[in-house]
Parts: sequence; C-alpha cells; structure tokens
Amino acid sequence: MVVKVYGPEYASCKRVIVTLIEKEIEFEVVDIDAFKNENKSLDYLKLQPFGLLPAIQDGDYTLFESRAIIRYYAEKYKSQGTELFGKTMEEKGKVEQCSKLGITPDQKVIQENEVKLEKVLDIYEERLSTNKYLAGDFFSLADLSHLQLGHYLLNGVGKEYMIRDRKHVSAWWDVISNRPSWKKVLQLFPYLN
Amino acid sequence: MVVKVYGPEYASCKRVIVTLIEKEIEFEVVDIDAFKNENKSLDYLKLQPFGLLPAIQDGDYTLFESRAIIRYYAEKYKSQGTELFGKTMEEKGKVEQCSKLGITPDQKVIQENEVKLEKVLDIYEERLSTNKYLAGDFFSLADLSHLQLGHYLLNGVGKEYMIRDRKHVSAWWDVISNRPSWKKVLQLFPYLN
Repeated sequence: MVVKVYGPEYASCKRVIVTLIEKEIEFEVVDIDAFKNENKSLDYLKLQPFGLLPAIQDGDYTLFESRAIIRYYAEKYKSQGTELFGKTMEEKGKVEQCSKLGITPDQKVIQENEVKLEKVLDIYEERLSTNKYLAGDFFSLADLSHLQLGHYLLNGVGKEYMIRDRKHVSAWWDVISNRPSWKKVLQLFPYLN
Repeated sequence: MVVKVYGPEYASCKRVIVTLIEKEIEFEVVDIDAFKNENKSLDYLKLQPFGLLPAIQDGDYTLFESRAIIRYYAEKYKSQGTELFGKTMEEKGKVEQCSKLGITPDQKVIQENEVKLEKVLDIYEERLSTNKYLAGDFFSLADLSHLQLGHYLLNGVGKEYMIRDRKHVSAWWDVISNRPSWKKVLQLFPYLN
C-alpha cells in the first residue's frame, strides 16, 4: 500500500517525508495548495478537520499531526529501514524527551526565542560532547526532528553562527544533514518553508 | 522501584501523576519550590538542565518532559492498570494525534486562542457524538492530556460555557473528570496551576 502524503510543500510535511524515506516506505505526494484554499475544500476537511497540512492516507487509515505520523511509522515498521526509536524502552524515552525541542522553524518564533534557543543549543553542545546523537549513540526521531530547524538557521535567516559557533553541534549537524534521506527531501522539495 | 516525581505542584506534573495512578505505579513526590529557586540548584539541574518541572527518577533512569514521561510509562507497563494507548498500532496513532491538542492551560494562551479553542471543541463535539472518547471507544492518553485544560476552564477562568454549551463534550468531561485517578490528583494537589 502506497502511503499518500497530503502537503507536501509545507513546513512539517518534510518531517514526515524524511521519516518515510528513512523507513523505506513507498509514498506518493498529493499537492494541496493553501494559496488556492485547497486545504479548506470539503474533501480535505474530511481528512483534516482544521485544514492543516500534512495528513496521510494509508489504505483506509488516515492520520494527521506530523509528530503522530512519524511515530506511527517509526513503530509500525520498527525493523524496516533505520530504527528511529533506539532499541530499548529507555532509549525510546530519551528520544521522546529530546524530540520535544525540535520546534518547527518560523522566523517570528526564532527571533522571539533566540535567547532560549541559544540555551538549548548550549545544552546540546554539552550532550553532543559525549553522545554522537541527541538521544544517545544512535540516530533517531530526535535528530530527525531538528533537520528543518537547522536548515532554516543555516539557510534562511542568517543565523549560521548559532550552529557553527558550537563545535559539537556543528559536527552533529554535518552528520545528520548529510544523510541521503534529508538530501533527497531537499532535492524533491527545495522550497524553504 | 518507587518512581520519584520532582514537582509536584506545577502544571504538567499533574499529567504525570494521573498517569502513574492509572498505571498503578508506586511513586513518591519530591517537592521543588520554584519560588525558592530550588529548580535552579546544581543538583536539580543535573536532572533537568533547564530547571523545568516535572522530572522523574526511576532507579538510575531519569527523564523529563511530561509527555515523554507519560508515554514511557504507558508503554513500559502496557498490560498493567489502564491501557492508555489503545490495543492496536492504528489506535495508538489516533491517541497521539488527539493528544497534541491537550495544551497546558495558561490564562494568556487561552484568552489569545479562544477562537481557536472554540473550533477545536466544535470538532471534539462532532467526534464525541460517535465516539465515547477522543481517540475511539477507549479512554487514553488523549483524554488524560485534557484533564488540566478542562479543569482550568471550569474552575479557574470562568469559561465553563466552553464545555457546558456542548452536549457531548460536557458528557465526556463528566466521565473523564470523575475517574478516581483524577479525583486523587486533585485531592493530593488541590492548587490550581
């Protein structure tokens, strides 16, 4: 069953698509153009009552909220593709804890919260001096949830220094942003949003 | 092993404690008084680097972020106490989707977002006309994540009508707020925050 991703040009859709690629799940995208109000059509509202993107359809099953979607696939196909929750319940707990900070990038939010974000990055810097990745020594949903934010800081808003001034954060960013899955997402959907 | 909950008088701590009670997990609370800056002590910062509450300690394992904590226990003790994620992966996906809307109550947030909240409640009203609970016909983390918000609307800010003007939301609120676990939480920690 091919998973249909409704979006796909909008912010959190990239999080879903990079997860599907990491889990080696076949998908197709259905373009929904919010500028033409296609997200407010009756058909789409049946799928997502608020008209928000993304949503997925997988056979008869539908789901929205990008973080609910990525968890669903990370669990459903646990042993296929990259294991995104670690191996133990305790590792999974840490993945969930760290995923919380992978905020969806938004210029307003970043400017208003720059001080807070600097503090978060300081804590990451310390953590990444002993761990290879955020939740431990394994790539996970926690790292994946930061791809958009990092991309935004480095390419959209002139905030490269927030990443590049921190040695371990900078090295971690190079590792995660060079994953083939993320390169594929940027190649498919090059618009920055 | 008795779970230590650091808090416990602060907002999201109640979400953790009601989960521990539903899962029949033994716990004790460690008072951290933010007015005395106890959450900024070096010892506490080792547990939670931002000085936020709650955090838990379970033997050698520590975890923060209330939603990460409640997921961890809902999964670790899946077959003990109330099953909070449903029975199938698909039910779990719906629980995660609906849990997203269980925002932590805050007077400012509620006033600024009253229009949005009204819309969310309209969608709940429709859903609860066919389902007994938010994610399906089973009580779950999705419902539990709304206990604080409902309590706040009904008791703190004069917004009872938001719940009481909606027949199905009102009936659902009566069912979930009468669970012994929630009554116990309010009895132990009667302060509204």
